[in-house]
Amino acid sequence: MSVYTPVSEAELGDWLRNYSVGELKACEPIESGIENTNYFVTTAQGRYVLTLFERLPAEELPFYLDLMAHLARHGIPCPAPIADLSDQYLGQLNGKPAALVTRLPGRSIERPDARHCEELGALLARMHLAGRSYSAYLENPRGPKWWRFAAREVRGFLRKKEVEMMDAELQYQSEHRFPDLPRGPVHADLFRDNTLFEDGRISGVVDFYFAGVDCLLFDVAVCANDWCMAKDFLLEEKRTRALLSAYHAVRPFTELERAAWPAMLRAAALRFWLSRLYDFHLPRPGMLVHAHDPEHFRRVLESRVAVAGPWSA
Amino acid sequence: MSVYTPVSEAELGDWLRNYSVGELKACEPIESGIENTNYFVTTAQGRYVLTLFERLPAEELPFYLDLMAHLARHGIPCPAPIADLSDQYLGQLNGKPAALVTRLPGRSIERPDARHCEELGALLARMHLAGRSYSAYLENPRGPKWWRFAAREVRGFLRKKEVEMMDAELQYQSEHRFPDLPRGPVHADLFRDNTLFEDGRISGVVDFYFAGVDCLLFDVAVCANDWCMAKDFLLEEKRTRALLSAYHAVRPFTELERAAWPAMLRAAALRFWLSRLYDFHLPRPGMLVHAHDPEHFRRVLESRVAVAGPWSA
Repeated sequence: MSVYTPVSEAELGDWLRNYSVGELKACEPIESGIENTNYFVTTAQGRYVLTLFERLPAEELPFYLDLMAHLARHGIPCPAPIADLSDQYLGQLNGKPAALVTRLPGRSIERPDARHCEELGALLARMHLAGRSYSAYLENPRGPKWWRFAAREVRGFLRKKEVEMMDAELQYQSEHRFPDLPRGPVHADLFRDNTLFEDGRISGVVDFYFAGVDCLLFDVAVCANDWCMAKDFLLEEKRTRALLSAYHAVRPFTELERAAWPAMLRAAALRFWLSRLYDFHLPRPGMLVHAHDPEHFRRVLESRVAVAGPWSA
Repeated sequence: MSVYTPVSEAELGDWLRNYSVGELKACEPIESGIENTNYFVTTAQGRYVLTLFERLPAEELPFYLDLMAHLARHGIPCPAPIADLSDQYLGQLNGKPAALVTRLPGRSIERPDARHCEELGALLARMHLAGRSYSAYLENPRGPKWWRFAAREVRGFLRKKEVEMMDAELQYQSEHRFPDLPRGPVHADLFRDNTLFEDGRISGVVDFYFAGVDCLLFDVAVCANDWCMAKDFLLEEKRTRALLSAYHAVRPFTELERAAWPAMLRAAALRFWLSRLYDFHLPRPGMLVHAHDPEHFRRVLESRVAVAGPWSA
C-alpha cells in the first residue's frame, strides 16, 4: 500500500479548516499508486483526493496543479485542485507538500473495446487543444534526456541482447527526433488505470504527475501502446483505428505526425521499458509496491520495431 | 419565457467548437429568469448552462465570471465558467456577450425547514470566507446609491403612505450605515430559487449576476428575509436560529454585526421592495415575464421596522 506519510483524522480535520469545503466526514488511505501518499477525503461539501507529494520537487508541483486547474476549467474531466483560504493550491501537511483535488466518479476499464478507444481519442484531442493555452513549461520528465540517464543506470543489470536492443533504440530515436511536431502539455501516462468511465463515457483522467511538455503525438502513442494492444503485442487494428479517428476528428493530425507515428510508438514503448527497468532494478528506498515487470514493454518495443503500426486516421 | 436572443442548434454547435467540451448533443431554452437568455446545453462531456447577457454592461461581466470561477475552485458548489480555447470565459454569440458555465444538479426547495436553513448558513459562511481572497471589486449594484435612484424613479407611482414609508426608511438607513462591518463579495440574491439541494445538501448556488462587494451581513439578511419567513412576515425563530448558528460556527459574527442585524434586515427588505417597485412600474422594454408583486417586500419591511428580528447566533 502507498501511505508513506500517515495522516490522522484529527490532523486532517484541522488542516481542512484552511479550506472552504466544510467539515471532514471521512478519510481513507488509497492503496494503489506508488509515487505519493493519497487519501480519499469526504467532507460536508463533497469527495476529494488528498495527495502528499513524496517524490516530486516542490518547485515542480505548481506546474502539475496549475495544469489540472487549467484543464478542469476548460471542461476536461480531470481532478480540479481546491484552493485554500489563502488562495493557494499547494499546502503543507505533516511536513510534506500537499494538495486537495476533486475526486472523480467512475471506474477504469481493463479490457477496452473500440468504443472506449474512440472516447479516449476524442478526449485526448480535446485535452491537447485545451492545453495549448497553458503557458507554464516543464519538459517531459521522462523524455529523451531521462532515457539516456536511465539506460546508463540499468545497463549493468541487463543481458547483452537487452543492452544491444536498448542502445540500438536510443540510437534510432536520437536520429528520429521531430522538433516540428505540434507540442504542448501531455499527460504522458494515460494508461487504462488512469482513466475512469461512467455510463460508457470518460468521467475522469487522473494522475497527472508525469505530465510535461512534449509532442502531442507522444501522448497518443502512449495510449495506443496500452489501450490498443493485441495478445501478440501488436496493435489491434480496430481499436487503434477508433482511437486515431476520434482524435483526428477533433484535432486533425498533420502530415508530419503521420510520418512520425511508427517512431513515436517506439519512443513510447522505450520510455516505459526504461522506467520499468529502472524501478525494477533500482527501487527507491521505502517503495512499497512491486514494480511492474519490465519484460512487457521490451516486447512491445520489439514488436513496434518489427512492424509499423497501422495508420488509419 | 426568457429567451431574448434565440440561438439555433447549428449556431450553438458551431460556437462550441471554440471550447473543449465535446460535441453538442442537445440544447433547451430555460424559461425562468428575467435578466438574461439562458439555455441548458448538453455536450459529449456534460451539462452546462449557456448565458447570453442582455442587461449587464460588458465591462462588469468579468467580475461575475471570475468570482464564480474563484468560488468554484475553492469548493463552493456554484456554476464554474468554462474557458474557451483562447482561455477566455467571456465570448460573443449572436451579437451578445456569452458564457458557458457548468450546470449543477439538484432542485430548489419551496418550504425550507430548519435543517435546510442550517445547510444554507454553513454554505454562506464558507462562501464568504472563500470570497475574501477574491481581489476584483464591484460595488453591490443594488446598494444605497441605487436605492436612492430607484426611489426617485418610482415615487410618482406610489401612494402617499408608501412614499412616506420609503423616505423614512431611506433616512433611517442613511443614519445607520456600518462601514466597519466585515465586507467582501456577496451573492446578494440568494433566495430559495437560487439554491439547489440534492439528498438534503446544497448542490448548487446559482445566479450570481446581482453579486457585488458589500457587508457580508447583508447577504445573511437577504437570506433570512426569504428563507426564514413566517406567514405573518416575521422571522420564524427556529429557522432563523438554524441559519445564524450554522453561519456563526464557520465564520463567527462580530459584536458589530450583532448590533447591526436589525438595521440590516431592514436594508435587505428595502432593497427588494425598491427593485420590485422599479421592475413593476418601469419594466424594461422586451421584459417578458411578470414582475414580482412589490407588496410582499413592503410588508416584510414594515414587519422588520416594527420588531427587531430574533438574534440567536
